[in-house]
Amino acid sequence: MSIKEEVRLLKREHILARAEQLFYERGYKATSLDAIAEAMEMTKPFVYGVFDKKTDILAEIYRRIMTKTLGVLNDAIALDASPTDRLQAFARSLTRLTIENQSAVSIFFREEGSLDPDKADEINALKSEFDSRLAGLVEEGVRTGEFAVSDTRMASLAIGGLISWVYVWYRKDGRLEPDEISGSMAGFVLNLVGAADSRDLKNIS
Amino acid sequence: MSIKEEVRLLKREHILARAEQLFYERGYKATSLDAIAEAMEMTKPFVYGVFDKKTDILAEIYRRIMTKTLGVLNDAIALDASPTDRLQAFARSLTRLTIENQSAVSIFFREEGSLDPDKADEINALKSEFDSRLAGLVEEGVRTGEFAVSDTRMASLAIGGLISWVYVWYRKDGRLEPDEISGSMAGFVLNLVGAADSRDLKNIS
Repeated sequence: MSIKEEVRLLKREHILARAEQLFYERGYKATSLDAIAEAMEMTKPFVYGVFDKKTDILAEIYRRIMTKTLGVLNDAIALDASPTDRLQAFARSLTRLTIENQSAVSIFFREEGSLDPDKADEINALKSEFDSRLAGLVEEGVRTGEFAVSDTRMASLAIGGLISWVYVWYRKDGRLEPDEISGSMAGFVLNLVGAADSRDLKNIS
Repeated sequence: MSIKEEVRLLKREHILARAEQLFYERGYKATSLDAIAEAMEMTKPFVYGVFDKKTDILAEIYRRIMTKTLGVLNDAIALDASPTDRLQAFARSLTRLTIENQSAVSIFFREEGSLDPDKADEINALKSEFDSRLAGLVEEGVRTGEFAVSDTRMASLAIGGLISWVYVWYRKDGRLEPDEISGSMAGFVLNLVGAADSRDLKNIS
């Protein structure tokens, strides 16, 4: 990688981080590229040299959080363990990811209408993949007799929602540590699918 | 009530309905009072005569959906029934309310940052009341031995989130009827709190 390219990538990361913070605090529509440059105490060409359009920054925020989310699901599915253990691992990891990426998750659910149509299609394809794979894991648990769910598709939407919702109420200075929240969420998720041993797990988590 | 007052209230309802639709579709910040008047094919004084400020319309949308939500919870709590049955009734009603008020619920979770501080305080007080009362219902079920939950406060946040999330994925032209969704959500909520008989209910809902 050339020094020039390395510098460009570094700038790109800084712009993305600052833009994410501003989109989160002020909303996407109310934040201009100029405002991002200003908040970074940089000149406008600094930003425009890396991103031509504000929607490209938004699309990259969407792409990254969706990729991380799918990654967490795929890692859990790939574990050599029972559906119950894999669903629990997934719920814990997704809760942690949500807490660690609260601003990106918030933007994800608030600013969908501002994505360019082709980018929205790309994100929707990743979302569908996520829903299908999660429903697949729930189905597996139903087949092994570990879970009791009649509509696995709706259960997967419910699980996704239950965990994502943490972005709404999580506060860094709140009474609960991320690990406690992740443990409780995993317990709730196992309960939700009627996991056979969730009554025991509840007291551990 | 004078005819004048009656006309003013009628106008107010029409403005609120149209504003809600536009805030939902375009976002609050991107929708001016002028745009609301234009969409109604009315003159600007028509709108300004009823609401001076756009934030007053937003505050009224928040107040109404929060009041309805609290109403649904209070109605369920007031039932002469077990905590399990009351929680189930609440979950069904709140799911229906969410489906019927998808645009208001969406605005509620997206536009919080745009509320005037005094209005935000008022809404937060109602939200706290909701969380406390719901946690109280869950505690009651724990006391009677029907529910198995260690952190009732977190469980109430989880339940609120699980149901509210329906606004994100519900589609009028989707494969599921509101009653099926309400039934499934109620089943998930009972599972979540470890309701003793939720495994039976699951097959009914």
